[in-house]
Amino acid sequence: MLYSRLFGKTTKNIISDADSVNAKLLSQAGFISKQLSGVYNYLPLGLRVLKKIQQIIREEMDAVGGQEILMPALTQLESWQTTKRQDLPILFHLKGQEDNDLVLNPTHEEVVTPLAKNFIFSYRDLPSAVYQIQDKFRNEPRAKSGLLRGREFNMKDLYSFHSDQADLDRYYELVKQAYFKIFNRLGLEKQTVLTFASGGSFSKYSHEFQTVCPHGEDTIYLCQKCHIAVNKEIISEQDTCPECGAADLRETKAIEVGNIFKLGTKFSSAFNFSYQDNQGNPQPVFMGCYGLGPSRTMGAIVEVFHDEHGIVWPSSVAPYHVHLVALDLFDAKVKSQADSLYQQLLSSHLEVLYDDRTELTAGAKFTDADLIGIPVRLLISQRSLESGGVEIKRRSSQKSEIISLNQISTKIFEN
Amino acid sequence: MLYSRLFGKTTKNIISDADSVNAKLLSQAGFISKQLSGVYNYLPLGLRVLKKIQQIIREEMDAVGGQEILMPALTQLESWQTTKRQDLPILFHLKGQEDNDLVLNPTHEEVVTPLAKNFIFSYRDLPSAVYQIQDKFRNEPRAKSGLLRGREFNMKDLYSFHSDQADLDRYYELVKQAYFKIFNRLGLEKQTVLTFASGGSFSKYSHEFQTVCPHGEDTIYLCQKCHIAVNKEIISEQDTCPECGAADLRETKAIEVGNIFKLGTKFSSAFNFSYQDNQGNPQPVFMGCYGLGPSRTMGAIVEVFHDEHGIVWPSSVAPYHVHLVALDLFDAKVKSQADSLYQQLLSSHLEVLYDDRTELTAGAKFTDADLIGIPVRLLISQRSLESGGVEIKRRSSQKSEIISLNQISTKIFEN
Repeated sequence: MLYSRLFGKTTKNIISDADSVNAKLLSQAGFISKQLSGVYNYLPLGLRVLKKIQQIIREEMDAVGGQEILMPALTQLESWQTTKRQDLPILFHLKGQEDNDLVLNPTHEEVVTPLAKNFIFSYRDLPSAVYQIQDKFRNEPRAKSGLLRGREFNMKDLYSFHSDQADLDRYYELVKQAYFKIFNRLGLEKQTVLTFASGGSFSKYSHEFQTVCPHGEDTIYLCQKCHIAVNKEIISEQDTCPECGAADLRETKAIEVGNIFKLGTKFSSAFNFSYQDNQGNPQPVFMGCYGLGPSRTMGAIVEVFHDEHGIVWPSSVAPYHVHLVALDLFDAKVKSQADSLYQQLLSSHLEVLYDDRTELTAGAKFTDADLIGIPVRLLISQRSLESGGVEIKRRSSQKSEIISLNQISTKIFEN
Repeated sequence: MLYSRLFGKTTKNIISDADSVNAKLLSQAGFISKQLSGVYNYLPLGLRVLKKIQQIIREEMDAVGGQEILMPALTQLESWQTTKRQDLPILFHLKGQEDNDLVLNPTHEEVVTPLAKNFIFSYRDLPSAVYQIQDKFRNEPRAKSGLLRGREFNMKDLYSFHSDQADLDRYYELVKQAYFKIFNRLGLEKQTVLTFASGGSFSKYSHEFQTVCPHGEDTIYLCQKCHIAVNKEIISEQDTCPECGAADLRETKAIEVGNIFKLGTKFSSAFNFSYQDNQGNPQPVFMGCYGLGPSRTMGAIVEVFHDEHGIVWPSSVAPYHVHLVALDLFDAKVKSQADSLYQQLLSSHLEVLYDDRTELTAGAKFTDADLIGIPVRLLISQRSLESGGVEIKRRSSQKSEIISLNQISTKIFEN
């Protein structure tokens, strides 16, 4: 992509109500643009990151046998009355033209349970798991912190259906491992800890995945021995680690990026959703639900990976692999070498953002590159060509070196 | 995919209010499931088709320099007051927690215009074009006809920004050609005609892309000479073809699958969106908008491509390339050959739906395959193996033939 043509460039304006690092950096760097409190536009750079996060999640959900579907945002209020959740304050209410009562779904148990009831009849149809990557709505009283707490936000929600508690338990562990793989691929493995939360009527605990971060909205208590954590609800009931029994739990701030929950028969009972066992007898369906928010995770990644100059994207979700910065473009020889290097990188299937602007100083271009945070910066200029090639510098490092044009592909993928 | 494990199988239930061929066939075949009038769940088969349609559209939008973004559904009512469209009856209204007035966007001129104003300042920033593939909301009084007229539906909307009318005219023609390419790739090129519609204040005509179809909701008048059409508004003003002047315009039913429109300065004026020309003087930005609905197009494809047995998908959007039907699975030899054929097809990067169910008759499996409508059916059974391989049959043809296992890949891609 030519940076000169990119829709959504960096801006020096401090976003007036950017109340968090992720809102500030993502807005200034041209990834998102605020529509209203808790509601954002994704600009081309931001949408590329969001899609990469979604694709990593999708692959790991497919790997645990999840089948992707897409459920609607609009739903009858009646479905929420069935589960007695119609008074949730975060429900957006609206009226259809025949004056029927509708809501915008903040979660989809009320949709997926009757949907699954249409297709799951027998023990032969179980287990089954479906997920979607879809936009949800929550009428948050305090939408804030950029992508961390939205009123319209992207969510991956997986729902699983089982013949009994044991099979739900088995699948729950499988999804837990899939979540670790996802946070590993997103570069968040060191910061993200499994956190015990209260479990409702069907299970002692549910689990959150909390990304430790100074500006997190949640408070968790991290076991210094086994590196799991408990949340506020749990610490009020017990002050030892539920995993290893240790008593050294240290308070820390974190962002909840995922949660997994054994629903048991709570929703299947509400919707009279049962299956026939191999004796022909009706049995209740056991359910699990597993959330992970791509947009919130994007915010969390920025909260964790930034420095005073801007964002430092992990490679797996960076909007582009390479930021090619060209200087001295008034010099036809440099211009021609820079353009041909850009084409060469594209033919090597690299994703490249090419800063081809002629009117900017080297300093302004470097500032933009640091703010945007693409992992590898290649600099081509009169001086670099005189020195034998291009300068390569990683966003995460101060070091730079001159390499020859034919070393580029190898060097980019070095760590 | 193993059909035995697929979420969303065929159903014999006639959907009570399936008022159209697409609603009936897509529901019975397990592609969609109705949530409420004009609102559908996409099951795994249906989501695969929707994504393929979206991807074809995305590629052609990228090819005309469109940059993909994602705008929100939720927006301030105020933005719609700015353009005096706040009273559109199809606007869904809702209240935020601070009692602020919000709407769900049925289209995005009110969002994209102020957004572009943040990033387009100078003639150097023009032309520019952004698009999104996103879910829209319309509070339709008569949501009906399955995916043809929804209250929540998927839309690709492209918006372009230009320094003058001439550049808008140039780009408009480019997008028109891109639309022909899209309908060509979707298999709808023969049925889809460019249709002149009224143009508003900035242009004599706008254009619709209408897919001719007996159950279409729109009435168009098709020129027998040059194969363009005019819509109802135009025929009431002139009864000759605006393209070739011929008078032989025949009334026919059609589905509007796309429309393109020169907005001129209507929205840029409302939002005071101007740019600086190369003399430093402010000038109004000219805009175009270009809609194409992936979900409605999915419905239109089914309206056009079906027979009395079910859907007949064009290859480019079929949920899978191959429907592998295995019979006689009680026979361990057949079972083992069928399983290994399935694996072999997958390793050839074919998308395969494998009907591995043991309890169904051949007739029931064939009925399901015809209903689902995947282009190529491969049958493996005791008899086919005795005859030297598998039976291949195209959904669009009555003919079948036995081919050896090593001929399969070649045969599948023959026409």
